[in-house]
Amino acid sequence: MNMSDYRHGSIEAYVRDLAANLPAPGGGSGAALAGALGNALASMVANFTVGKEKFAAVEADVQRILAELETIRKRLLELIDEDVQVYTQVSAAYKLPRETDEEKAARSAAIEEACKTAAAVPRTIAECCDRTIALAAELCDIGNPNLISDVGCAVRLAEAARHCAWLNVAINLVSIEDEAFRREMQEALEEAGRKSHELAETTWHKVVQHILS
Amino acid sequence: MNMSDYRHGSIEAYVRDLAANLPAPGGGSGAALAGALGNALASMVANFTVGKEKFAAVEADVQRILAELETIRKRLLELIDEDVQVYTQVSAAYKLPRETDEEKAARSAAIEEACKTAAAVPRTIAECCDRTIALAAELCDIGNPNLISDVGCAVRLAEAARHCAWLNVAINLVSIEDEAFRREMQEALEEAGRKSHELAETTWHKVVQHILS
Repeated sequence: MNMSDYRHGSIEAYVRDLAANLPAPGGGSGAALAGALGNALASMVANFTVGKEKFAAVEADVQRILAELETIRKRLLELIDEDVQVYTQVSAAYKLPRETDEEKAARSAAIEEACKTAAAVPRTIAECCDRTIALAAELCDIGNPNLISDVGCAVRLAEAARHCAWLNVAINLVSIEDEAFRREMQEALEEAGRKSHELAETTWHKVVQHILS
Repeated sequence: MNMSDYRHGSIEAYVRDLAANLPAPGGGSGAALAGALGNALASMVANFTVGKEKFAAVEADVQRILAELETIRKRLLELIDEDVQVYTQVSAAYKLPRETDEEKAARSAAIEEACKTAAAVPRTIAECCDRTIALAAELCDIGNPNLISDVGCAVRLAEAARHCAWLNVAINLVSIEDEAFRREMQEALEEAGRKSHELAETTWHKVVQHILS
C-alpha cells in the first residue's frame, strides 16, 4: 500500500496536490480535513469554557465533550491519509489485466473488494462529522458565549464535510455489486444524515440569532 | 504585527492550534482553509479536463476557469494567516489602557480601526468563495464528468466556508460604531450570499442527480 502522510506535511503542499491532476487526494480526503477543522473549532469553544469559575456548573459536561472531540479529531486527521490509500487501491484494481476469463474474474473481485474498503473510509468520516455536529450543538447551549461564532463555523464545516463524505460513499457504491452491502450502507448514512442536517441547521440559526440580536 | 505563517506549517500543527485556547486561529482562518479546499477540488476537476481530445471544445473555457481558480486559491491560502494577524490586532486594541479620558478615546478609536480591518479579511474570504462557487458551477456543466463528485465537494466546502466568513464579518461589525460602514458591508455580503447559496444548491443537486441516476 502506498503510505500517505499528508497530515504531517504542509497545508500548502496538501492543497497543491488536492488541486493537481493526481488521482488522490480528492473529495473524501478533503472532507476529512474539513471535518477536522469543524471539530477543532468546537474544541476551541470547549477549551475556552473549561476551568473557568463562571462555567463551573457545566465543567463535567464540557470536559466529556472535549475528550470525545479530541478522540474524533485524531481519527479525522488519520482519515485524510487513509482515504488517499484506499483510493490508490481502487485505481490499482482497475489497472489489473483482463485478457483471460480468470483475469477478468480476479479483476472484478479485486475492484469489488477495493470499492468496499474505499466506501468504508468516507462512511467513517461521515460518522465522525455526525458526532462533531452533536457535540457542537451541546456546546452551543452550555459553552462560553464569547465563542458563539466558532460554534456556528464548527457546525457549518462539519455538516459540509458530512455531505462530501456521503457523496464519496455514494460514488463508491455505484461500482459495488453486493446489493445487501449497498443497501445497509445507504440506509444507515441517510438516516444519520437527516438527523445531523436538522441539528446543524437548528444550531446555526441559534448562533445567527445570538449574533444579530 | 505578529506574523503568522500557518500555511507553510503542517496540517496537524494548524488543526492543533485551531482547537487550542489561543485567540487565533479561529473561525475566519478556518473558513479560508475550507474555502481553499473547495477551490482545490474545483481545480482538480479542471486539471482532469484540460488538454484532453474529448474536451477540446471547452478547452479555452476550462483554461480560463483554471487560471482564475489558481489566483483565488493563492489568495485564500494567504488569508489563513491574514485572519490570524488582524485578529491579533483586535485583541491588542482591547488591551490598551483606559484610565484617563484621552486613553479611553484612543482605545475606542483603535478598536474601531482594528475591527474594520478585521471585518475586511473575512469579507475577502467570502468574495473568494463566491467566485469559487461560480467557477465550480461552470465546471459542473463542462468539466470531465468522471470527477462529478469533486464538483459536488467543491461547492459544498466553498459554500460552508462562505457562511463561516459571513459570520465572522457579522461578529466584527457588532463592535463597529460607523453605521455607513456596517450597512455597506452587510448589504454587499447578503446580496452576494443569496446568489452563491442558490448556485451552490443547484449545482449540488445536479451532482447528486448525476451520481444516483
